[in-house]
Amino acid sequence: MSDKVFKLAVLKLGCIGAAPLLDLLLDERADRDDIESRGFTSGPKLDPKSCAGPTTDCIAYEADLVLMVSPNATLPGPTAARNLLLESGVTTIALGDGPSKNAFFGKNEAGKQVVNTPPELGFFILPTDPMIGARREFLDPTEMALFNGDVIKVLAATGVFRTVQREINRVIETLKRGGRPVLPTMVVTAEEAINSGGFSNPYASAKALAALKIAESVATITTRGCFVEQESKNYIQLVAAGHEMMRVAAQLADEAREMEKQNDTVLRTPHAANGSILVGNQLGEKPA
Amino acid sequence: MSDKVFKLAVLKLGCIGAAPLLDLLLDERADRDDIESRGFTSGPKLDPKSCAGPTTDCIAYEADLVLMVSPNATLPGPTAARNLLLESGVTTIALGDGPSKNAFFGKNEAGKQVVNTPPELGFFILPTDPMIGARREFLDPTEMALFNGDVIKVLAATGVFRTVQREINRVIETLKRGGRPVLPTMVVTAEEAINSGGFSNPYASAKALAALKIAESVATITTRGCFVEQESKNYIQLVAAGHEMMRVAAQLADEAREMEKQNDTVLRTPHAANGSILVGNQLGEKPA
Amino acid sequence: MSDKVFKLAVLKLGCIGAAPLLDLLLDERADRDDIESRGFTSGPKLDPKSCAGPTTDCIAYEADLVLMVSPNATLPGPTAARNLLLESGVTTIALGDGPSKNAFFGKNEAGKQVVNTPPELGFFILPTDPMIGARREFLDPTEMALFNGDVIKVLAATGVFRTVQREINRVIETLKRGGRPVLPTMVVTAEEAINSGGFSNPYASAKALAALKIAESVATITTRGCFVEQESKNYIQLVAAGHEMMRVAAQLADEAREMEKQNDTVLRTPHAANGSILVGNQLGEKPA
Amino acid sequence: MSDKVFKLAVLKLGCIGAAPLLDLLLDERADRDDIESRGFTSGPKLDPKSCAGPTTDCIAYEADLVLMVSPNATLPGPTAARNLLLESGVTTIALGDGPSKNAFFGKNEAGKQVVNTPPELGFFILPTDPMIGARREFLDPTEMALFNGDVIKVLAATGVFRTVQREINRVIETLKRGGRPVLPTMVVTAEEAINSGGFSNPYASAKALAALKIAESVATITTRGCFVEQESKNYIQLVAAGHEMMRVAAQLADEAREMEKQNDTVLRTPHAANGSILVGNQLGEKPA
Amino acid sequence: MSDKVFKLAVLKLGCIGAAPLLDLLLDERADRDDIESRGFTSGPKLDPKSCAGPTTDCIAYEADLVLMVSPNATLPGPTAARNLLLESGVTTIALGDGPSKNAFFGKNEAGKQVVNTPPELGFFILPTDPMIGARREFLDPTEMALFNGDVIKVLAATGVFRTVQREINRVIETLKRGGRPVLPTMVVTAEEAINSGGFSNPYASAKALAALKIAESVATITTRGCFVEQESKNYIQLVAAGHEMMRVAAQLADEAREMEKQNDTVLRTPHAANGSILVGNQLGEKPA
Amino acid sequence: MSDKVFKLAVLKLGCIGAAPLLDLLLDERADRDDIESRGFTSGPKLDPKSCAGPTTDCIAYEADLVLMVSPNATLPGPTAARNLLLESGVTTIALGDGPSKNAFFGKNEAGKQVVNTPPELGFFILPTDPMIGARREFLDPTEMALFNGDVIKVLAATGVFRTVQREINRVIETLKRGGRPVLPTMVVTAEEAINSGGFSNPYASAKALAALKIAESVATITTRGCFVEQESKNYIQLVAAGHEMMRVAAQLADEAREMEKQNDTVLRTPHAANGSILVGNQLGEKPA
Repeated sequence: MSDKVFKLAVLKLGCIGAAPLLDLLLDERADRDDIESRGFTSGPKLDPKSCAGPTTDCIAYEADLVLMVSPNATLPGPTAARNLLLESGVTTIALGDGPSKNAFFGKNEAGKQVVNTPPELGFFILPTDPMIGARREFLDPTEMALFNGDVIKVLAATGVFRTVQREINRVIETLKRGGRPVLPTMVVTAEEAINSGGFSNPYASAKALAALKIAESVATITTRGCFVEQESKNYIQLVAAGHEMMRVAAQLADEAREMEKQNDTVLRTPHAANGSILVGNQLGEKPA
Repeated sequence: MSDKVFKLAVLKLGCIGAAPLLDLLLDERADRDDIESRGFTSGPKLDPKSCAGPTTDCIAYEADLVLMVSPNATLPGPTAARNLLLESGVTTIALGDGPSKNAFFGKNEAGKQVVNTPPELGFFILPTDPMIGARREFLDPTEMALFNGDVIKVLAATGVFRTVQREINRVIETLKRGGRPVLPTMVVTAEEAINSGGFSNPYASAKALAALKIAESVATITTRGCFVEQESKNYIQLVAAGHEMMRVAAQLADEAREMEKQNDTVLRTPHAANGSILVGNQLGEKPA
Repeated sequence: MSDKVFKLAVLKLGCIGAAPLLDLLLDERADRDDIESRGFTSGPKLDPKSCAGPTTDCIAYEADLVLMVSPNATLPGPTAARNLLLESGVTTIALGDGPSKNAFFGKNEAGKQVVNTPPELGFFILPTDPMIGARREFLDPTEMALFNGDVIKVLAATGVFRTVQREINRVIETLKRGGRPVLPTMVVTAEEAINSGGFSNPYASAKALAALKIAESVATITTRGCFVEQESKNYIQLVAAGHEMMRVAAQLADEAREMEKQNDTVLRTPHAANGSILVGNQLGEKPA
Repeated sequence: MSDKVFKLAVLKLGCIGAAPLLDLLLDERADRDDIESRGFTSGPKLDPKSCAGPTTDCIAYEADLVLMVSPNATLPGPTAARNLLLESGVTTIALGDGPSKNAFFGKNEAGKQVVNTPPELGFFILPTDPMIGARREFLDPTEMALFNGDVIKVLAATGVFRTVQREINRVIETLKRGGRPVLPTMVVTAEEAINSGGFSNPYASAKALAALKIAESVATITTRGCFVEQESKNYIQLVAAGHEMMRVAAQLADEAREMEKQNDTVLRTPHAANGSILVGNQLGEKPA
Repeated sequence: MSDKVFKLAVLKLGCIGAAPLLDLLLDERADRDDIESRGFTSGPKLDPKSCAGPTTDCIAYEADLVLMVSPNATLPGPTAARNLLLESGVTTIALGDGPSKNAFFGKNEAGKQVVNTPPELGFFILPTDPMIGARREFLDPTEMALFNGDVIKVLAATGVFRTVQREINRVIETLKRGGRPVLPTMVVTAEEAINSGGFSNPYASAKALAALKIAESVATITTRGCFVEQESKNYIQLVAAGHEMMRVAAQLADEAREMEKQNDTVLRTPHAANGSILVGNQLGEKPA
Repeated sequence: MSDKVFKLAVLKLGCIGAAPLLDLLLDERADRDDIESRGFTSGPKLDPKSCAGPTTDCIAYEADLVLMVSPNATLPGPTAARNLLLESGVTTIALGDGPSKNAFFGKNEAGKQVVNTPPELGFFILPTDPMIGARREFLDPTEMALFNGDVIKVLAATGVFRTVQREINRVIETLKRGGRPVLPTMVVTAEEAINSGGFSNPYASAKALAALKIAESVATITTRGCFVEQESKNYIQLVAAGHEMMRVAAQLADEAREMEKQNDTVLRTPHAANGSILVGNQLGEKPA
């Protein structure tokens, strides 16, 4: 690919916490020379009809890599979009929440769960990016935004976003050099994430892990509140509890980061202008 | 327009805090029957070349209303995009941060600042959506996401997002009925925002106002850190201080909301399936 | 039984969070005229040999009711003790953590899980009373006490202890009158507990529910840290994260209670001198 | 004593904060090979009749060492129990709160307060383990548990429990070797406790000291609320204030521990399987 | 005195927490028409020589009322100043910390402590205004200011300052009308103070009481640190602990006030232009 | 001047946050041998008549140096006092808030703002010492004291007071030696202040800077609330928001200091008995 600018497409179908800032994660100061990016979204909706338009536009963009993000990737909308992308031949990496896992895993002869995707399709499963408490009595635009704010803080401060940044960067670098990258096929577990978190203090690391485990367990609560409980008193209480859990998860993630500030050991991994990832651990220091 | 589904386009050029969730604010549970929405973005970049593609796609979508969001709307990229939209004849509402104000205001003969936009162009200026601390030593994807998480929490909990929700809803309702709406031409000041915040406790309201005033003053600090100070020691300290200010602004906004929870008076304004805005003030109550 | 003083025995085998204060929960100011109580414990150990002595002493006491509390009630030590108590004919109520459930439930013909206990045996399963992070590198007497302090705060502030108080009181009252009580056979779920919590503010209730859900999910983390992970780096991180989760659960439970203080609506259910449970909701008010 | 397993008895008469977890402090993971322990308690009551039974059982156990814990050791119940233990010849260490001091000290000819106990009786006076706010309008089982949770956190995080652990361990080791230990006759002052706390940061140490001084002053408030003030408005306010003080003491103790976490210098003193006390100061490190 | 402007003198000798803002407490917005005030101070020093000058100036001012504030009023400096004021015939009210009590109380024949002051001398003893940790290793100007900031917050938020405001106002009103006021001879106990605090929530009141009790116990710690302990390690730890206690006392006082904000019941007692005290309890309301 | 004791006068006209403790900052433990100090104040009032008396007394004291502190130094009261001091020939340093700047700066021929003071007059402008919310509905003595408590904590913990301490000390030392000092003519900006703050952790420094920037922006809010807004609903909200901002600024300043405690690197600069400034950075260490 040599001198060409790398074309990155982000296809967002519906919303999970990792979606709103996904394109920004790869060029956080808008100063990379090596890539251009484009986002295509269906807004909040996820049905096949809503997904069709942005998918078509996305394919028409002829990107070098498509990041596709949605909740529950097993639903018809994301599934159709994924198939169209694969048919078009573009390298694709999907990001999805916990329930998306079934779209990418199958069972082998021994009955064991194994990755079941074509080589052109990579994926990240983010079990720590839980469903929102989508009940009308509770979820208005304000509450929706607050929940996403908390999820973003957890995914950022603990290392989930950095895991994604690092892996996608690796893929882009290989593609830029004309190579064929091994695409990520990862369940970004809490443990995996905190490794990328780069904590120097083991208690900060434990706090980040705790934040992620709480975030992960939110999914159980909100899912039950949205799909199982039918009496409003009960489901309101559940979705409200889910958001309270997310709020303390964000506070705990913040506590972890403050601990690293305390020792001036916050890991920073900004992109250089050429797209490589620089590393710094002291605020005064120039990342290299 | 009667039975037709309303087509809403969101054109995002670069990023401010109001951008990542903008499409979701208008259909927060993805259950509105009356609208479909599409998002088109240039990712983090804002130069004319980056803006051109998504603008073209956006116009091709033939929306009933375009929301266009960017930092500094006076820059060539957003300016060109805005002009293309206006030429296409689509009703457009721009959202921008403080520095965007100059794109929409001129001076009258008396030298007084007055709105200077064509009737098909509305706008929201959000002075409480401050510039990020975009210095490489400091701003990596993680820090970028954390800052946006904090901004989102402030804009949501204080009433900024609800101001936007209410005004855009009014425009959509008029357009749906085939009318010609008066487009918003608002500087969403801190005072304006907390009115939409709907606080029942005056101290909660004062805390929300304080959070917004702090957010507003962040802009001064980070702008100076990004564009004025040249010595790294100085600008790092400034952008870091700006993010610390944003962090406490988010905490203060959260304090305001907790106060309303305390009295079970949190205002909730979810959308009904038909797109109208419902109102509820008690958690157990059905918004109506 | 009329004028006789009721004899309550508490048999503690090993430790869960509900154990250390169990006898005190039923006579919190030591001023009840109607009961006397005795506690018999094996200390921290739970093996059959350690359990034998206190069980024998307990039976010799000839109590009117025995409360028996232990972790994992399926283990040989508690099982043997339980059987001895039942053989002795004393009415017995067991309290256990989540893993104890299997000791009291079986499957019916339809393969459904059903209570499977003799009529003289009641039980409480407390899934929100999680296993401690029992790894030597991490758990010393100080850490052990801190974890139990957090668990106690969660069980108390959310309503778990009040559920137990209420049910046991009901049993004692019936026994005192010479009746045959229906013994509790309850899994004290988080939802069940917050009903007893008596919160007047729905957000306080949601916070308490969130605290309990976090406490419940601690069990998964610490159990894996104690029994599954073999590498010290990994299990230390897990048990430390479990304790961090318990710490925020306690903070969240405290937040719920502070909310009720805020409105002067804290539910108080002290015992009267005759053992009945009084009820008060305002600090200045005399419970009645 | 050589190969014999050491028999430790804990006799709990009534309750102070140091009582509920006392047996667990000496075998926190239930994995010591060298001791077995048994607990005997009168539940919350403290009168001579209530104390008699557990004391008899305790003596019958023929322990190598008895730890006896109660509030106000000068009362008839604990006094009688203590005398019976001494008559039985068993080595005994009493733990008591501030008012217990008079049971163990007398005045010498010069009118100075001196230890006045037989050589077979050791004691710990814990002035930082204050009386609970035992007024019916205020103290129900929930409030009782919360207070004890706070006291436990203070005694644990500051070093009080570690002082006790260390001294009792010393006695047990000597007894195990067949020696005659010098029994502790200590008032565990706040200053004494923080020495055992093992803080590496002097501000953490100062915070722990502050927490203990607050805990100590709680006793004055609650005692006056329980025994002096007769008007309910006044005594409710006093006991409520006492519990608020204990709550902030627990927060301050937690702050001290968080400071040590911050520097990864938390002192941990777990027991080895053979009962010796290991020492570790870094979370990743194996205590030795 | 009728139309004359009332002349208020404040003589500050050395410093306690109530001193720095004392003159401002009586004309908080500088808009009273009825009084003028003057302050005379010896700065931090308290010896007779330092006190002489400001006392002379103060007497020369020929005030209608002198407020005299100092630590330990039994010392020669304040004692001489007090005597000179009394000799001059001016009505005087002294404010002092706990140790000042001996200057104003004597023992009657029955050996009971009774007020022992001439009728022209009133006083306030403030046991909740504790000595600072005046050790050079610890107390620099920064630490001194921080401690005073905390003391001021406690004295203000709990009601101590309002007690003083109310009583002095009463005296001034009487003097303005030409009457002979009964001068206050009060030990402003914690209980007395919270009555003036005007809390509507009993838990806020309990928190305020707790804050004051902690502040009161600081005095014991810092006094011992300043005058008793001679080894630097020990006294530094003590004075540092005293300041930590004061810090949490300020936080607790703040918590009490936040509780009142929560219910919009903060008591406000501003002065009217004519010097009378207005009362308001809701933020939006005009005090009357 | 050799053996003479240095005479320091502090003239306080009205109140800003730097005023109440100003004399104490220079002799914080009242143990300096080399200076004596006297304070003269007009209480809260600032009009020329109120200022006249204390100014006359101050001049009569014949100090070696006068520190004069007031809000808005351009007002007639402080202006007249300043002129009288200069006429008397005494070396004078004025301290004022932001609006005072105009009293000390003029424009040069190029229209640039330059210092415009006689050589005998130095000054400090403190833009981070903001106006109080002086509206009767809001500001009573309690609220006034709380605001000042917060301002004091910010000015102390961030380094503003230390800047003043250092500069005045330099002047005093020169005067003591009979020299002619260059008087400070400083706007103590936030950046200037944190240099004196002496933070070793860059995040602590950033937090302190953030606290000061918030404090600085309070001035805009409260000034508008006091002088511009005429409707009570609006101005109450503004002044209340201003005080909420000051409260979080104080919390943030405290956070900065806690960070330094965390690393045991708190800078302490106590005065020696001879008036020189000692320096220490570890709590256990003797400042030298």
